[in-house]
Amino acid sequence: MNEIEIKCLDKGFVRLVDVMGDDTAIVQAARVSYGKGTKSMTEDRSLIRYLMRHKHTSPFEMVEFKFHVKLPIFIARQWIRHRTANVNEYSGRYSEMRDDFYIPELTQIKPQSLFNKQGRAEECLDTDKAMLIAGKMENTQKQLFAEYTDFLDNDVAREIARINLPLSTYTEWYWKIDLHNLFHFLRLRMDSHAQYEFRVYGKAIADIISEIVPLAYEAFEDYTMNSVTFTKAEFEALKIYLRNNTINQDELLALGLSKGEINEYQEKINKLNME
Amino acid sequence: MNEIEIKCLDKGFVRLVDVMGDDTAIVQAARVSYGKGTKSMTEDRSLIRYLMRHKHTSPFEMVEFKFHVKLPIFIARQWIRHRTANVNEYSGRYSEMRDDFYIPELTQIKPQSLFNKQGRAEECLDTDKAMLIAGKMENTQKQLFAEYTDFLDNDVAREIARINLPLSTYTEWYWKIDLHNLFHFLRLRMDSHAQYEFRVYGKAIADIISEIVPLAYEAFEDYTMNSVTFTKAEFEALKIYLRNNTINQDELLALGLSKGEINEYQEKINKLNME
Amino acid sequence: MNEIEIKCLDKGFVRLVDVMGDDTAIVQAARVSYGKGTKSMTEDRSLIRYLMRHKHTSPFEMVEFKFHVKLPIFIARQWIRHRTANVNEYSGRYSEMRDDFYIPELTQIKPQSLFNKQGRAEECLDTDKAMLIAGKMENTQKQLFAEYTDFLDNDVAREIARINLPLSTYTEWYWKIDLHNLFHFLRLRMDSHAQYEFRVYGKAIADIISEIVPLAYEAFEDYTMNSVTFTKAEFEALKIYLRNNTINQDELLALGLSKGEINEYQEKINKLNME
Amino acid sequence: MNEIEIKCLDKGFVRLVDVMGDDTAIVQAARVSYGKGTKSMTEDRSLIRYLMRHKHTSPFEMVEFKFHVKLPIFIARQWIRHRTANVNEYSGRYSEMRDDFYIPELTQIKPQSLFNKQGRAEECLDTDKAMLIAGKMENTQKQLFAEYTDFLDNDVAREIARINLPLSTYTEWYWKIDLHNLFHFLRLRMDSHAQYEFRVYGKAIADIISEIVPLAYEAFEDYTMNSVTFTKAEFEALKIYLRNNTINQDELLALGLSKGEINEYQEKINKLNME
Repeated sequence: MNEIEIKCLDKGFVRLVDVMGDDTAIVQAARVSYGKGTKSMTEDRSLIRYLMRHKHTSPFEMVEFKFHVKLPIFIARQWIRHRTANVNEYSGRYSEMRDDFYIPELTQIKPQSLFNKQGRAEECLDTDKAMLIAGKMENTQKQLFAEYTDFLDNDVAREIARINLPLSTYTEWYWKIDLHNLFHFLRLRMDSHAQYEFRVYGKAIADIISEIVPLAYEAFEDYTMNSVTFTKAEFEALKIYLRNNTINQDELLALGLSKGEINEYQEKINKLNME
Repeated sequence: MNEIEIKCLDKGFVRLVDVMGDDTAIVQAARVSYGKGTKSMTEDRSLIRYLMRHKHTSPFEMVEFKFHVKLPIFIARQWIRHRTANVNEYSGRYSEMRDDFYIPELTQIKPQSLFNKQGRAEECLDTDKAMLIAGKMENTQKQLFAEYTDFLDNDVAREIARINLPLSTYTEWYWKIDLHNLFHFLRLRMDSHAQYEFRVYGKAIADIISEIVPLAYEAFEDYTMNSVTFTKAEFEALKIYLRNNTINQDELLALGLSKGEINEYQEKINKLNME
Repeated sequence: MNEIEIKCLDKGFVRLVDVMGDDTAIVQAARVSYGKGTKSMTEDRSLIRYLMRHKHTSPFEMVEFKFHVKLPIFIARQWIRHRTANVNEYSGRYSEMRDDFYIPELTQIKPQSLFNKQGRAEECLDTDKAMLIAGKMENTQKQLFAEYTDFLDNDVAREIARINLPLSTYTEWYWKIDLHNLFHFLRLRMDSHAQYEFRVYGKAIADIISEIVPLAYEAFEDYTMNSVTFTKAEFEALKIYLRNNTINQDELLALGLSKGEINEYQEKINKLNME
Repeated sequence: MNEIEIKCLDKGFVRLVDVMGDDTAIVQAARVSYGKGTKSMTEDRSLIRYLMRHKHTSPFEMVEFKFHVKLPIFIARQWIRHRTANVNEYSGRYSEMRDDFYIPELTQIKPQSLFNKQGRAEECLDTDKAMLIAGKMENTQKQLFAEYTDFLDNDVAREIARINLPLSTYTEWYWKIDLHNLFHFLRLRMDSHAQYEFRVYGKAIADIISEIVPLAYEAFEDYTMNSVTFTKAEFEALKIYLRNNTINQDELLALGLSKGEINEYQEKINKLNME
């Protein structure tokens, strides 16, 4: 197989190591399951889209991907929360850690978001300030690696010497996951609420697999990634909006929407009114 | 704990055996996770609704339910497909099977649906026909159990004697699952596409847990169970509909909707236009 | 890939559909994990055996197998209890069930074991009796299928018509699992306590994979399948036996072994004394 | 429930938050499963020991524990590899990290082991050297936290400001797991090959649960934790040893044992010959 590798952040990468199956494997599994029930769906594309739309997820589990990923530890800690996957990670107990640390691009050193408690703002810090911070980060990383090396030289066991290495240290792993669970991963990690550094990896993985399972990926985009869900109350609000061509704050509150929900609803309506 | 039991079908039941946690446990776990990030959400209800709406699912995993269920084997076979749960099932290798079989009510002996490949129609068979079929079912079950008993009397091992018992035989199990995975189970099994006999159990479980985690259950209904999702193309269609107060078949086809999708879209629009 | 198929029981089979990786993939993943820590293990075989012996199981998760299996439903019900796998099963709701039922060979129609509550005895029933039982089984299966067909002809929905079909009905599925979990499956299902009909499938799968991952399979046999474990009390008993060349019932009871454990211990000692 | 908390390392702890079930719940689930098959096992203790000895693991899954744990991130990274559990961890994206870092006791700052590639030696560094290293660690941690605070004061988003915090930073989580999977966790993490800092937590959890499920814990110790397994080749060696009261290096090599295995075998024989 031709190995595909995409660079991520300053020193990371995602590399496809192996794959089992493609769009055909999804169709093949579905036809075992549904037997003659699928005979009217003559085309593979129709069947795959039907499966995705109706959340018949098990045929998508029949495709498996194995990636080699190099990533900073603070991203690895979020990534590993996806439990339905297999991992072999580089071990700092067995082997020496390498002199590889993540430093954000200046344009990614941003203020805390005022709206999103877990994320950074849209706007950047001014460049001088960002440069100063990036510089401090780099110096600190150099110092920490020097201290790590010094500990090892003084015969401190690797498993102890490493404990002051920073969360920005790069690690590596092999990561194996089936397509259904990978779609779930991508939906969460390509979302605008995911940390920027994670979205970079999400995007890289999406680029790789969209070449391998183009029909399934297209269906994922159409039915999952770019679908819009209205909550029960939002749907009631939409009814009123449709009848009256408008809906006011009081009506929304009366339907039980909280302030946060009213904002979220308004965003969806704005999207609906976009050309 | 007061044991709650709900009868299901002709001889089955769902019984709550034990539970760990309630709405408070969800809030408690979320506050560990998000720390001061949750301080503005003063009320438990707001926080639980926020978590559900934004798919912060892990706090819901902190509540655990254990049920004792008696159910026909053909339902057990669908049920067990939910893998993130723990099961102890009655074993026909260790113990003799009991004389307990499911016979559908006459009103549930229906024709094959013309629209839904996996389900039965809305309308019933005529009562005489249904009675005839139910009668045949019962006779067959009696005969099969008599043969089973006869095999055992002839000293055939239990694990072999049972192999001709029907899928309508009742089995029992203890089933333990966390609330997040239970909501996923309920969303699929209370859906109109689920087999009627399964929906009966889904409804019983929903009735039990809505008493124990009322805030979480309400949020599940508002944001998951009764939400309406528009696919990417349906959302585009909704835009046109909103602008022009109408959309025709050609426009829908031009947006890429298949015939099946056009029907699904129309159902959603009908719902939107209902008073 | 060359498709390998092994017949199982009277009408079943196991067929390898696809595989990701081989012994080399295990080694490759281990070297990512342990880095230079593995450099002294120059040979793949040594490394694989080291991993298996020390229960470093994650590299074995990097190999994935997909099988097409045809099997009786009563075996499918045990099989599905292995949750860390992916399944697409033939659906009796979508499609008509086929006229395929398992009838045991005469030599497998055995009495209940006196020692093993969950299994059958070593000895057979007499042939006439076994023939009689097999004949009854076959007749019953024919009758049940005729009734199923009759129900369908009377327009009963498939999902209802099938409920009196027997547990001996054959079903089919695609089953996908990683090598680590497959070894766990094989250890349990090739064990003498597993139901004979299941062991037949276990053996077939073992035959297939031992060709594909010969080094890993050899290590599995040497370190897992054919290892012998002494419990804490049995190990104490072994100490006494080694010192005194004998150990009596009272000494064993004094060590806390129950009657069942004394039998199990004696079996191990007998094995130790075999030439 | 009385909350039990055990201090771990310099600033960590394990605290039992909630529990579902006890020894009785295991027995209850087993009796559902095995029906009359268990009637001869009149006592709970006998039944629990039988289940553990014969690896009937599912009844142990019916007991569930929830812990609140405070632990250094480098241990959290190993811990999270146990996938069959639920976690809510403190988030450095939502909330500010606290000034809490792990510093090893002087007696735990040890050289790399010569035998165990992943661990530290038995012997200590000399005290002066250890003090020097511990002092450096503490200084570095103070400096890193000061820099973190400085970044926050300069309005850098929390999710970026934290990336140079060290792996020795304490985090917290709620962790929920069933008893079967917890035993698996304990077997690996109380093992002498586990990192010392992890064993401290393993021991604390064992102390807590042995009070709650005393019969199951005793069975775990007797049949799993303190059992001794002989590989196929080791068992053959044991046969020879038993016959001849001795076995030499050449005979062991002839049986296929590698050098590493010969050492492991010798350790078991030494244990057998201990009074």
